[in-house]
Amino acid sequence: MLKRVRLLRVLLTATLLVSGLRADEGMWLFSAPPREQLQTRYGFEVTAPWLDHLMKSSVRFNSGGSGSFVSADGLVITNHHVGADDLQKLSTAQHNYLRDGFYAATPEAELKCVDLELNVLQSIEDITAQVNAGVASGLDAGAAAEARRRTIAGIEKASLARTGLRSDVVTLFQGGAYHLYCYKRYTDIRLAFAPEQQIAFFGGDPDNFEYPRYNLDVCLFRVYEGGRPARLEHFLRWSAAAAAEGELTFVSGHPGRTERQLTIDELRFLRDVQFPYTLRRLKRLEVLLANWGARDVENARRARDDFFTVQNSRKAYDGELAALHTPTLFAAKTADEAALRQGGAKPADNVALAGELARIAEAAQRQRELLVLQRLVDGRRHEVFFAPDGFNCDSFALARTLLRVAEERAKPDGERLEEYADAARESFELELFSEKPIYADLEALKLADALGLLAEELGYDSPVVEQALAGRSPRERAHELIAATKVREVAVRRALYAGGAAAVTAAKDPMIELARMIDPVAREVRRRWEEAGEVKQQAHAAIERARFAQRGAAVAPDATFTLRLSYGVVKGYTESGRAIPAFTDYAGLYARSAAHGNREPFDLPERWAARRGALELATPFNFVTTHDIIGGNSGSPVVNRAGEFAGIIFDGNLQGLALAFAYEEVESRALAVDSRGILEALGKVYGAESLVNELRRGRRSE
Amino acid sequence: MLKRVRLLRVLLTATLLVSGLRADEGMWLFSAPPREQLQTRYGFEVTAPWLDHLMKSSVRFNSGGSGSFVSADGLVITNHHVGADDLQKLSTAQHNYLRDGFYAATPEAELKCVDLELNVLQSIEDITAQVNAGVASGLDAGAAAEARRRTIAGIEKASLARTGLRSDVVTLFQGGAYHLYCYKRYTDIRLAFAPEQQIAFFGGDPDNFEYPRYNLDVCLFRVYEGGRPARLEHFLRWSAAAAAEGELTFVSGHPGRTERQLTIDELRFLRDVQFPYTLRRLKRLEVLLANWGARDVENARRARDDFFTVQNSRKAYDGELAALHTPTLFAAKTADEAALRQGGAKPADNVALAGELARIAEAAQRQRELLVLQRLVDGRRHEVFFAPDGFNCDSFALARTLLRVAEERAKPDGERLEEYADAARESFELELFSEKPIYADLEALKLADALGLLAEELGYDSPVVEQALAGRSPRERAHELIAATKVREVAVRRALYAGGAAAVTAAKDPMIELARMIDPVAREVRRRWEEAGEVKQQAHAAIERARFAQRGAAVAPDATFTLRLSYGVVKGYTESGRAIPAFTDYAGLYARSAAHGNREPFDLPERWAARRGALELATPFNFVTTHDIIGGNSGSPVVNRAGEFAGIIFDGNLQGLALAFAYEEVESRALAVDSRGILEALGKVYGAESLVNELRRGRRSE
Repeated sequence: MLKRVRLLRVLLTATLLVSGLRADEGMWLFSAPPREQLQTRYGFEVTAPWLDHLMKSSVRFNSGGSGSFVSADGLVITNHHVGADDLQKLSTAQHNYLRDGFYAATPEAELKCVDLELNVLQSIEDITAQVNAGVASGLDAGAAAEARRRTIAGIEKASLARTGLRSDVVTLFQGGAYHLYCYKRYTDIRLAFAPEQQIAFFGGDPDNFEYPRYNLDVCLFRVYEGGRPARLEHFLRWSAAAAAEGELTFVSGHPGRTERQLTIDELRFLRDVQFPYTLRRLKRLEVLLANWGARDVENARRARDDFFTVQNSRKAYDGELAALHTPTLFAAKTADEAALRQGGAKPADNVALAGELARIAEAAQRQRELLVLQRLVDGRRHEVFFAPDGFNCDSFALARTLLRVAEERAKPDGERLEEYADAARESFELELFSEKPIYADLEALKLADALGLLAEELGYDSPVVEQALAGRSPRERAHELIAATKVREVAVRRALYAGGAAAVTAAKDPMIELARMIDPVAREVRRRWEEAGEVKQQAHAAIERARFAQRGAAVAPDATFTLRLSYGVVKGYTESGRAIPAFTDYAGLYARSAAHGNREPFDLPERWAARRGALELATPFNFVTTHDIIGGNSGSPVVNRAGEFAGIIFDGNLQGLALAFAYEEVESRALAVDSRGILEALGKVYGAESLVNELRRGRRSE
Repeated sequence: MLKRVRLLRVLLTATLLVSGLRADEGMWLFSAPPREQLQTRYGFEVTAPWLDHLMKSSVRFNSGGSGSFVSADGLVITNHHVGADDLQKLSTAQHNYLRDGFYAATPEAELKCVDLELNVLQSIEDITAQVNAGVASGLDAGAAAEARRRTIAGIEKASLARTGLRSDVVTLFQGGAYHLYCYKRYTDIRLAFAPEQQIAFFGGDPDNFEYPRYNLDVCLFRVYEGGRPARLEHFLRWSAAAAAEGELTFVSGHPGRTERQLTIDELRFLRDVQFPYTLRRLKRLEVLLANWGARDVENARRARDDFFTVQNSRKAYDGELAALHTPTLFAAKTADEAALRQGGAKPADNVALAGELARIAEAAQRQRELLVLQRLVDGRRHEVFFAPDGFNCDSFALARTLLRVAEERAKPDGERLEEYADAARESFELELFSEKPIYADLEALKLADALGLLAEELGYDSPVVEQALAGRSPRERAHELIAATKVREVAVRRALYAGGAAAVTAAKDPMIELARMIDPVAREVRRRWEEAGEVKQQAHAAIERARFAQRGAAVAPDATFTLRLSYGVVKGYTESGRAIPAFTDYAGLYARSAAHGNREPFDLPERWAARRGALELATPFNFVTTHDIIGGNSGSPVVNRAGEFAGIIFDGNLQGLALAFAYEEVESRALAVDSRGILEALGKVYGAESLVNELRRGRRSE
């Protein structure tokens, strides 16, 4: 469910910062900000109130992305591509909000989102000792994984009961530490404004991850409590001056995943197994959806968010894999690991470390053998960018959830699959009972393709494929299942959920029965996968201790889709000898469209062509910074020293892809929309005066 | 080099004709036409002059497709999508003939094709005994394969010397028989007319392999001899009446490949290994080219033919694989093979047959292990539809040819790789010295992608990948190689070809050196692949004898991109309960475009919008028939009893995909453009009066 910020292919010509800490590196924990670096490099003092205010103004979009409060009346700004999922769900054959945009001049006109959950972080607690204490030493990997899961579920449940807040235990440093994050949840979220996708994603797939750019990639929602706009203590004031070149700024958001602490063997696993599988899966799906969408306009509308999501993920993974195919990156990583191997204070330390690395290598080898099956039949993996699971349709996902939740709820909380723990119940029910539209034709298309893939990857004669196809062709089987299942009806899902295992069994729903047939294999492959994961976590904990002993604590943990603070400056760069300026403006937008004959994907919405004369063309539109960001940071605010909103992150450049594996600041850049450009467009192109006033004043006019 | 007729996904609900011979089945040899079936079913007598006239009026496009002479002055008609390759090569940034079309009002205005070779069959000779006599019994598979190659090269060379005709030995019945085909070659071919691709391929990828259709998928070339339009004795007269529903007609063309005689184990190999690999390769390339083409108009033009070819192949292979995923097809094939296994006159016959089937199973297993490597590093496999080879760019292909031809020409003719045999020299030089445009940017794009694929499929650390990348990332390596190699200059190729191995070595061309590094692995995998192939050919020869003994000779051999005769009738069909009429007309074209708001790919060329009033809208445009066709039949004439041109095959419907594996005539249909529709468009839309007159009269007006 993590969204896909956008990163990149890459030419890694610049020096990689593999070890140690330099420059503007780091996605820092709010509980351990880089006070010293900020003081030394920028003379900036991080105060507790400043940090607390920024934390409570930052918003996590659980559909995968970041945002921030920008008014006392609950207004949230994020990217258009983060809101796209919700725009898609709100759209109908009559109103294509994702393509055409939306504006509510008053709160009454705002549209309630179907199943969006926003989280606002309230507290962080280090519970490493407590988690590790729950895992007795000497347990085998399977038992240890189970004990750890049980301990974590217990901590989360107790915290929820105590605080009433969503309580998530987060694994940091690949297993080196565990923290408890408590969030305020919002589930009544309404759409206030979205531009046309054409201007939000101007340049489309060709320009994605490129710079210079001209994207109005923003979307405004409002959080409600008790049926009224929420009254907020913490929100970001709008900066009229935005950020100047070279000025220190901050990004507060939810980077989804980095892999900087992985060992060489784990990186090889990503390079040779996981990314290639994911990419062939995505490219297959991209071709399927492109072809289906070209058949008619309504198809294209139904598949619109899926299609853009797949394209974006494909370009991101292509870029990340290209980074892993860059010899300099592997050389630097290898040198760093070699130094670590030899850096212990005593020879025995080095022997112990070698043992931990070998355990990881062995576990990675086991995951090599499991990956494809795991993705196909279990498939619930957190990824920064979208990676479809095996059956790739809502009907199957809902059927499996109904099946599993009925089985899992009968067990003690600590023994369940983690996604069915009591602490996750509210979020999980929101999803299960979502009224989002599910289109049978698109479902059948995707399921038929998924069943075909299953046969191609596992071999048509394999037992799992035989079970899944039940003597039909993939296409026939998919159409039969989609036509016969009742799980797309919310009332049916509510009844089955309430009725428990007996009701689910009695329903004899063919999609649920398919899930039931597959489940033993799915659970077994997950068990083996998690066993290998436990081995890696334990080894990483030991490696982190060794790294700390050798080098101190100055490194931020890998990203985990939890709130982090990055710092950096607005700064242009050089690409293939060409100087790329830091800012673009509206004049550049019109010039680029004209250079492409206003042809898709460089075409402008009608409104933009018509209002050109009204716009101040020199208004800054997009800019680039050195912040350390990654997928999931989409929608993060760029904040100045005063804690004001100066812009919003929406992408990284191509060179920035390598940030998944190592920080680099010569060519890698974060891309943002300028706060001035946003106001100019809201006012002069969309006539959204009520929003312009609210952003300027920090609250609605009464 | 075989072109991609177009076939399909499929719902195989109808009965498959797996064994025996019924209905209109069969791609018949011109040397063994289905006299009895035609007499019995249709009361038609096949005479030798009728057959000879049709054979010599039929044209093979070596770029992959079929055509026919339609005037005494050398005019050849084929499909637009067969001519697309030549249109692409003739196009420039200024003239996009592939997209915009072309018309020469006089021969002087015709455009000479860059490297097109047309073949017209003159004779067929059964040389099975001679080939088998050249392979001593008791040889191991490697030696047998070599002996067979040597024997064939000798036969071809002697025939070329004797007749002056292109002489190809064709392997029939998967190894059951060998025939010698002698062709008249034409290499001075000029473009006379092409419509806009929009109308030739109206409906684009979504409508490809669908029906009803509205495609003016035609293209007119003229063959020249001695610098003047060739004067022909044999050509097809244009039928003013075309073909009526239910009327017996014939298709004379070059079906590329069918797999009807494969064993179950060979079909499993296609289903589980070859087709999945090919499809992931194609989808990867489709995504790459779509994205690059979207970046700007000139990119799109450069990649245009590549892109459509890839889309077409992807849809075709997707359809063929879907047929193999249909349980009824496998059930029928399995039952047939079981019957064959038990059908021998004596128990010993059955034991022997079982042994042959087991040998094939074992060889197929070996090819399973070789396929991916073979495709990546050797990759010269004949396919009906396009399947990219490992390095996927002209620069590498030319470099490898220069390397290998220099090495091979030093050997006796019979010991060379078959494509460098003396008998193939003229055709091969035509290709090597082609002046076709090769774009460095597109080359680098495709090579970078191909090198990335190599790393993904074989593992980044594999020795082949290390050699290929030479310490660079795929992208860097590709750009360096493409920038540094000189093989894109025709003069350089001519000089290196003339200079032989010494000159090739002295050139130190980095692309040739890459080919040299890879060559030992490539040759070794080819050797092992062909060894397995020899085992299969020998076993198939034995199986064919057994089949003949049990069932007689009434089956046509699998397609081999050589001239075949099919018979059938114009006939509508029923799809999902809906009656699909046999004919479409121009009124239907305009209606379909309007139904899609004239949006791409359902948009009409300007000329077609403007000339609508001039057209007789009831003119038949496309029609469907029961002919047994497959990829490679694209451009084949549909001929009536009188031997007149009534239409031209351009596609099959989705259900027709299964024809690769078994004939079916309830739902499978061949698609054709009506001769009346062609004339109407030439005259009233394009004002191509000179061509209309020539087609009507059978020769040019002087």
